[in-house]
Amino acid sequence: MPFRIYLDHAATTPVRPEVSSVIAEIMESDFGNASSIYAEGQSAKRLLEEYRDQIASVLNANGSEIYLTSCGTESDNWAIKGVALRNFGKKMHIVTSQIEHHAVLHSCKALEKLGYTITYLPVDSEGLVNPDDLEKAIRDDTCLVSIMMANNEIGTIQPVKELAAIARKRGVIFHTDAVQAAGMIPIDVRDLGVDLLSISGHKFYAPKGVGALYIRKGVALDNLFDGGAQEHNRRAGTENLPYIAGMAKALMLANDEMKEASPSISKIRDQLIDAVLSTIPHVRLNGHRTQRLPGNANFSFEFIEGESLLLLLDHYGYSCSSGSACTSGSLDPSHVLLAIGLPHEIAHGSLRITIGRENTEQEVMSIVPILLKIAERLRAMSPLYEDYLNSKEPVYETCEHCQAAEQP
Amino acid sequence: MPFRIYLDHAATTPVRPEVSSVIAEIMESDFGNASSIYAEGQSAKRLLEEYRDQIASVLNANGSEIYLTSCGTESDNWAIKGVALRNFGKKMHIVTSQIEHHAVLHSCKALEKLGYTITYLPVDSEGLVNPDDLEKAIRDDTCLVSIMMANNEIGTIQPVKELAAIARKRGVIFHTDAVQAAGMIPIDVRDLGVDLLSISGHKFYAPKGVGALYIRKGVALDNLFDGGAQEHNRRAGTENLPYIAGMAKALMLANDEMKEASPSISKIRDQLIDAVLSTIPHVRLNGHRTQRLPGNANFSFEFIEGESLLLLLDHYGYSCSSGSACTSGSLDPSHVLLAIGLPHEIAHGSLRITIGRENTEQEVMSIVPILLKIAERLRAMSPLYEDYLNSKEPVYETCEHCQAAEQP
Repeated sequence: MPFRIYLDHAATTPVRPEVSSVIAEIMESDFGNASSIYAEGQSAKRLLEEYRDQIASVLNANGSEIYLTSCGTESDNWAIKGVALRNFGKKMHIVTSQIEHHAVLHSCKALEKLGYTITYLPVDSEGLVNPDDLEKAIRDDTCLVSIMMANNEIGTIQPVKELAAIARKRGVIFHTDAVQAAGMIPIDVRDLGVDLLSISGHKFYAPKGVGALYIRKGVALDNLFDGGAQEHNRRAGTENLPYIAGMAKALMLANDEMKEASPSISKIRDQLIDAVLSTIPHVRLNGHRTQRLPGNANFSFEFIEGESLLLLLDHYGYSCSSGSACTSGSLDPSHVLLAIGLPHEIAHGSLRITIGRENTEQEVMSIVPILLKIAERLRAMSPLYEDYLNSKEPVYETCEHCQAAEQP
Repeated sequence: MPFRIYLDHAATTPVRPEVSSVIAEIMESDFGNASSIYAEGQSAKRLLEEYRDQIASVLNANGSEIYLTSCGTESDNWAIKGVALRNFGKKMHIVTSQIEHHAVLHSCKALEKLGYTITYLPVDSEGLVNPDDLEKAIRDDTCLVSIMMANNEIGTIQPVKELAAIARKRGVIFHTDAVQAAGMIPIDVRDLGVDLLSISGHKFYAPKGVGALYIRKGVALDNLFDGGAQEHNRRAGTENLPYIAGMAKALMLANDEMKEASPSISKIRDQLIDAVLSTIPHVRLNGHRTQRLPGNANFSFEFIEGESLLLLLDHYGYSCSSGSACTSGSLDPSHVLLAIGLPHEIAHGSLRITIGRENTEQEVMSIVPILLKIAERLRAMSPLYEDYLNSKEPVYETCEHCQAAEQP
């Protein structure tokens, strides 16, 4: 491939060489079925428990609380449908937020068809759930609260510890989708006080196709995968040992490097945000200014259609996204951007840049002049922009949290 | 590891070198999220559709009918729960057989808790479902029939074409778990007339952690994985391209080699069966003598406890199993062996040997004298065997299908 700068690490990350070499090694050396009692099986079983313990130790869980899955989507579906179905006919109310990943939202939608009621909590203009709203939403028949740790589009980090405490006080199970958070910010399940927590390997340089669900000891939920006796009879299916090894390795590396990597990525992100907002007019930053994932920058470009922006960036060699990769191809604007209060036409003009460990400051900053050029070109073609130039009416409400509103 | 002969290919297979090299190559070269619109994503998307078409062509399906999953267990759970939940409150009856894999049986059990009724069809002494029984079991509220193509323990191949025709005549969706069949015997979804068919990569030399579900065009079922828009909105989760590439490669290789490999493996299996039955007394063959998977031999050893047999075989370097790997550790005898009419104590003394493409005739046959030695040693410790020697009462009913009953 010619010159490319990959800036979509929230969609997926490349597999680190240290991880792919572990995968290749285990695939070659340990093909046994971890459920078998002979040597190959027992060797696989020992390694499986070793990797499980490694994952657990990063999250401050016990090994017996880590259940290996095929991805973050599976973990989310399992947590939500599993708790819901365990309470079928008894407690059939769930509380979640309007800005969850579709793995959570669409799982909830599927449960509505079975008679469950879902409360979708609103968020403020920065994407934060108000703990008071959660307090009020919990009912006697609430079986589950599911609120993500960090948003995949706008990067906002929720006050999960505070939210989980509210659920616990009311005796309600609390799940958090930590798919975007794992490997990026510290996660301590005990300190957070969560009951269920989802992670996905391919967001932190392990491959796509492996994830985990933390299930606090004593938490009851039905299976998503019924079948064999794997994972203490809770998640059937022969274990994918090479990828599990890879995920454990990747998570430990991310954890070891976090103290240095996070501030350095955050610094580049802040430079990028400052440069974009000061260079390009009519741009706003979406999400919380500081309480956000280190690598995440999400902008709305007025008078611009997001897809055209992405296609031109791609042409110049930059890989970015307009929001969640999982909904690419959809013409609907992002539900997250609508939930933080953006009007439809502005939500359509959004750009997510997510910086990874392999990006240099120079690489990331090189996008700014390109963005300026593309924005000028696309706006020159926009009849709405022409109207604006003629009328000079303000297009955004000035936002107290947003440095970007109404730049010259 | 010291000298080992692996004879448990129904539990899992090693990854073929041609497959692991494809996996390593794609993991290195194409890490893009196939849902992304930029170059890396579009490259991944193109490859994904290429692999999907390859899998489809082996099964005589269209590419658009192949849905990629994380394993056979997921495929089975999706097929069964997906069809059932699509018919929630309307058609809530399912027909299956008593000898299905637990991925099917336990999925059915989970549905019983939601108010579904399941008919578990019996099988004859060779493990065959009687088509007349299926005909009688289908009701007006039957939404699904699920009968496996080939049994994982005793290798018996069902008359799926005939069974599927009965379901189709009654307008009922037909699913077959072809996890053991895929790569071993030809599968043509059009000729079989099935609506849903599950396969799993690690049974044919691809890695654990990838599978597929064939969904005939027009068949309606709910999602198991709700979330992103992947797989035509039917199976959320970022695609695991390296493993999908590996599975496509492994399936094509198995298909290309089947014409030569199957008769040669069957020949070794028959030699093994003949030798065991003629060398070791009080052994019977389980499953159909001819209508069985090429590599499968399943024996019951009277006066012997299966786990001891396996542990001693392991000591001598042979990896075999007592039945399904997924239920290892369980003290219950195999539900399959009970369903074909074996008494509990004899079902406990079962041994499954499943031969793979890398096993030589010499390797496989070398187990016979070892088995004889182990059987003699274990029987010498058995009070039941001593009773038998003193009484000379026959222990097995003579079985018309079984050459093994009452050997001298």
